[in-house]
Amino acid sequence: MVNVLVVGYGTIGQRLADGVAQQDDMNLVGVADAAVSLGIRALKEKGMPYALYAANEKAKSDFEEAGIPVAGLEEEALQKADIVLDATSAGVGAQNKELYKKYGVKAIFQGGEKNDVADVFFHGCANYEKGLGADFLKLTSCNTTGLIRAVDCLNRTCGIEKVAITIVRRVADPGDYHRGLTNALQVDPAPNHQAVDLMTILPEIDATGILVHAPVTHGHFITVVATPKKDISKEEAIEAFRGHDRIRLVRLADGFKGNASIFKYARDLGRPRGDLYEICIWEDTIVKSGRDLMFGIHIPQESVTIPETIDGIRAALNMETDGARAVAQTNRNLGLGAWK
Amino acid sequence: MVNVLVVGYGTIGQRLADGVAQQDDMNLVGVADAAVSLGIRALKEKGMPYALYAANEKAKSDFEEAGIPVAGLEEEALQKADIVLDATSAGVGAQNKELYKKYGVKAIFQGGEKNDVADVFFHGCANYEKGLGADFLKLTSCNTTGLIRAVDCLNRTCGIEKVAITIVRRVADPGDYHRGLTNALQVDPAPNHQAVDLMTILPEIDATGILVHAPVTHGHFITVVATPKKDISKEEAIEAFRGHDRIRLVRLADGFKGNASIFKYARDLGRPRGDLYEICIWEDTIVKSGRDLMFGIHIPQESVTIPETIDGIRAALNMETDGARAVAQTNRNLGLGAWK
Amino acid sequence: MVNVLVVGYGTIGQRLADGVAQQDDMNLVGVADAAVSLGIRALKEKGMPYALYAANEKAKSDFEEAGIPVAGLEEEALQKADIVLDATSAGVGAQNKELYKKYGVKAIFQGGEKNDVADVFFHGCANYEKGLGADFLKLTSCNTTGLIRAVDCLNRTCGIEKVAITIVRRVADPGDYHRGLTNALQVDPAPNHQAVDLMTILPEIDATGILVHAPVTHGHFITVVATPKKDISKEEAIEAFRGHDRIRLVRLADGFKGNASIFKYARDLGRPRGDLYEICIWEDTIVKSGRDLMFGIHIPQESVTIPETIDGIRAALNMETDGARAVAQTNRNLGLGAWK
Amino acid sequence: MVNVLVVGYGTIGQRLADGVAQQDDMNLVGVADAAVSLGIRALKEKGMPYALYAANEKAKSDFEEAGIPVAGLEEEALQKADIVLDATSAGVGAQNKELYKKYGVKAIFQGGEKNDVADVFFHGCANYEKGLGADFLKLTSCNTTGLIRAVDCLNRTCGIEKVAITIVRRVADPGDYHRGLTNALQVDPAPNHQAVDLMTILPEIDATGILVHAPVTHGHFITVVATPKKDISKEEAIEAFRGHDRIRLVRLADGFKGNASIFKYARDLGRPRGDLYEICIWEDTIVKSGRDLMFGIHIPQESVTIPETIDGIRAALNMETDGARAVAQTNRNLGLGAWK
Repeated sequence: MVNVLVVGYGTIGQRLADGVAQQDDMNLVGVADAAVSLGIRALKEKGMPYALYAANEKAKSDFEEAGIPVAGLEEEALQKADIVLDATSAGVGAQNKELYKKYGVKAIFQGGEKNDVADVFFHGCANYEKGLGADFLKLTSCNTTGLIRAVDCLNRTCGIEKVAITIVRRVADPGDYHRGLTNALQVDPAPNHQAVDLMTILPEIDATGILVHAPVTHGHFITVVATPKKDISKEEAIEAFRGHDRIRLVRLADGFKGNASIFKYARDLGRPRGDLYEICIWEDTIVKSGRDLMFGIHIPQESVTIPETIDGIRAALNMETDGARAVAQTNRNLGLGAWK
Repeated sequence: MVNVLVVGYGTIGQRLADGVAQQDDMNLVGVADAAVSLGIRALKEKGMPYALYAANEKAKSDFEEAGIPVAGLEEEALQKADIVLDATSAGVGAQNKELYKKYGVKAIFQGGEKNDVADVFFHGCANYEKGLGADFLKLTSCNTTGLIRAVDCLNRTCGIEKVAITIVRRVADPGDYHRGLTNALQVDPAPNHQAVDLMTILPEIDATGILVHAPVTHGHFITVVATPKKDISKEEAIEAFRGHDRIRLVRLADGFKGNASIFKYARDLGRPRGDLYEICIWEDTIVKSGRDLMFGIHIPQESVTIPETIDGIRAALNMETDGARAVAQTNRNLGLGAWK
Repeated sequence: MVNVLVVGYGTIGQRLADGVAQQDDMNLVGVADAAVSLGIRALKEKGMPYALYAANEKAKSDFEEAGIPVAGLEEEALQKADIVLDATSAGVGAQNKELYKKYGVKAIFQGGEKNDVADVFFHGCANYEKGLGADFLKLTSCNTTGLIRAVDCLNRTCGIEKVAITIVRRVADPGDYHRGLTNALQVDPAPNHQAVDLMTILPEIDATGILVHAPVTHGHFITVVATPKKDISKEEAIEAFRGHDRIRLVRLADGFKGNASIFKYARDLGRPRGDLYEICIWEDTIVKSGRDLMFGIHIPQESVTIPETIDGIRAALNMETDGARAVAQTNRNLGLGAWK
Repeated sequence: MVNVLVVGYGTIGQRLADGVAQQDDMNLVGVADAAVSLGIRALKEKGMPYALYAANEKAKSDFEEAGIPVAGLEEEALQKADIVLDATSAGVGAQNKELYKKYGVKAIFQGGEKNDVADVFFHGCANYEKGLGADFLKLTSCNTTGLIRAVDCLNRTCGIEKVAITIVRRVADPGDYHRGLTNALQVDPAPNHQAVDLMTILPEIDATGILVHAPVTHGHFITVVATPKKDISKEEAIEAFRGHDRIRLVRLADGFKGNASIFKYARDLGRPRGDLYEICIWEDTIVKSGRDLMFGIHIPQESVTIPETIDGIRAALNMETDGARAVAQTNRNLGLGAWK
């Protein structure tokens, strides 16, 4: 059993804590945060299933004033941890890194940090071996994590030469009041960072793309035009996707009409918070464009990076040297693929 | 133990089934439906925690074709049930009533049906005694149910002479594709039906109001201008609301910025589907207008009617003759008030 | 002919310039701004119907670099002006005031500035005489301007004792990317500033209210519960509103279903930018609550303050001492009431 | 001068009437409609700039009852017309065709009709010569019209082998209450009809694509991955687009952040209703994907088909046999390209 501390109990941190708690070979030391948020208030109302550590003395007294039990200071928790999952706001992780070094604790940062915060830019499925024994990993962002799952899956099947992607990015999470768009699409300069990041993880593939922000909250939608090295039919692509435990194939005729249907389905499944770890690919969108293959992906932005982050723990702590076995163990503990 | 069948496994039906399953004095016979929906597919993926009955032979073969286990036909289930919670689409309940009569089963209809489908127009908190022993009850709609909770609470405290309400109605549920508004508010003719319905349940109060549909999915927002019979201060109103186990008082400073914060909080709480049974009243919105009291309410439209519907079972089957005790038992089983 | 300079060529400034240009007794000196915006680019593409002055040397060179003809510096324009309409961003007007004083020019500020920027808090219909000869006026905000039109109209008819208002505030204008909400309503602390401001303009009326931001762009929606001094019927209220040239009565049956219908109608009318100066009141929403009168108003946020601001020019420069005649002249020049 | 009648005075019909009225070689007989809509009410308030004909006796009496002047019955207008622009709801045009035949009047249908309603599926820029002398033309839909402009432009520059398109489709127009999505993206089966239609107009190109509906009203956004026959650089593509009078190149740095900026700009330009005839292509989105060229287009759905429809009049009535000259004349009359 390795000891894991989650630092930052926001949208991603909450889900990381839940995901680690489900692993049969990991012990969740607790979570650390600096301010009284709705998530922390909910933790209290649930009866503190996880120990809460305060980022500093100020946070400690704020928590206590709000009636929220504190297990101690983050620095105390660091002494019990083998690895930190840092899910703080973008930029804060880089600062925290010094602290982690001081306590000799490894860390995995999320996609909001700059790449140079880490030794390795990591994706559990695509480059597991790069993370083996590393002190500091950085995960790909939510869009990139989901995108790479699909592209890496095809790449292993037929080889991929290049991809041209279009991302319709959900602009805010449910409950966000600090960002939002109203009746507007917003265009980003091309190529988007997800294409650039994909090339870092899968350097043999040439990638570019256009991103537009859309005023919705329940998941990104990505179209991929992939040029294969070896010809691949629609049926073979379906076969490949179907074999991947972090990908679901869905169909319009079954009621999966768009991103909101998928969120509804996850809620109906009883998944905590209506979360889904899997990306979904619509069978109905898979078409050939000459030799190219085109398809549409749903990315559940709040939870999609959880499995690959947990893979990262296995890699960094050398819990498992074989990537496929590591991923399979994460999947098993999270129930991924069990529904097939 | 009384035997309860839920007919119609949509947004409301799913939540009724979950709510009944939590009661210590009720047995859920199962759920019945006529078509393969996402909710039914999720039921299958969850391993059929509830028996599924087919509304008819056609439905039965559709379910089987989709690989969904069927326990039998709805008519068989009716023979095992003491009461049906009918959560079918508006209008269908009236047709089903003949079937329920044929099998001598009582039924509770949801707010979408016309009032004359039932012997009694029912609200657990406000007119429990009217439902005692009745064969057919109809629940108030989601907006009306939440609104009456608050108004009835005040009415018991200081007497209410009249209310003027403004409803900002969420136009669709998360996952709805059959209805929606884009960048538009839609005005309804006044008075809205919720005001009229309130007067049916609480005939001593004069009510009117204006309703506008807004393009959001996470809850209605209602403002009430209530004219009290006996003067009431803001503090007394807070005291009254605080004592009600189906009402939460929330504050902007705690992070509850609007309807989306409340949905987020319920998700963070781990409530199935991010549901909340309680209405929320913002302390920050409670103001006096001369002698009148004004305040703002959040209504979680998907789940708010569940407690009052379960109260209805207790009333219709004479399981408890005292309204306050019946409501308290429903609350206890649903965990309402436990967080205080 | 009085000489008017518009400072700040954003959403409001553009419309002020157009409105002043339509007056038969006013000369538009031009418009001043500090940065190359889309509005300024459009001015150029239209062939510079208005002279553009640069707020400073930096702005001048920015304009020239973008190929936009500049007539000179703002300080030069101030020497030709009798009065400035300051439509800069909130807070900037207070800084500009020193400049206006230096050049002995009067000024009218918009609702975003603090009240103490001006000698008088002004509304053309409600307190015209307060503005006579004043050096510095501040207009009420868009919501308050529209709200006061309706309340002042009733107040002159039957006397108003108090109002309780609910504002559904559009969260952004069409084209805004710097603010927005996605699938969320946001609650403000009560009472909202519009109620407080109303009491400043109409001190004999007690006002309070609740405001909720909604993710739409085409107009605010306000409900008013007004307690009259002298009883007033629905028909009498309709009569009073119908007599007001800055108020339109609309009906659901005529196709006016909500804020978006009104914007569409103004576009179909060929109004520049689809602007409407009038507020709209739905006949279908006017109801009695005991002796109180309740009704729903549409506020076209981008253009509603234009008429009252132009009234302010007449008052500040003593162009007309009688409020009713001043307002009538503004109306005539803007075509208000012509459609009746 | 040829005589043109517009049948159907909705979103498209209003704009067709305005566009025809601006042509120096066309006479607008008037517009015909069957019901009192907001557009018709606005026509009245504007003082009937166009004669209104009633589709039938019922419509005539409805108009008269609403106080709207009627010039006569549609059948009378047909006797004065050389050609009809049919902008009725989808499916109605096919019925109207019999009437047009009866009166020996040519007609151009909009994209909502089935292809077999017409002799020719028409796009002014791409296949003008096909429309010469034809009795019945059908225009491409709004998305397809804009898409083909860009693809045809490139095709003439370097030859295009295939295109893979992603359409983010605005789900409703401003003012629509009969359709809409709230916080949801909706996926269509691939390939979308726009790709199929493109191949009908430009049969030498292989096209496919994925369409997702988004909850916005101000324009579609399309990404195109185009495989050229002859290599083309980003700079050459910009050069080609820049030379096209129905295409605008826009830049993020100039303030064109997305679809809403473009609508705002058109409003600021003083274009009636804030309409734009041009499509916009963001320079910032043009990237190379290997040999392929990728770029992002804005389609102003309400007005984009007007120029190509007017081209169709010139073709069907043999007013001009040379496509380039016909298009240039339409452009000149609509002011297209004048801003360069």
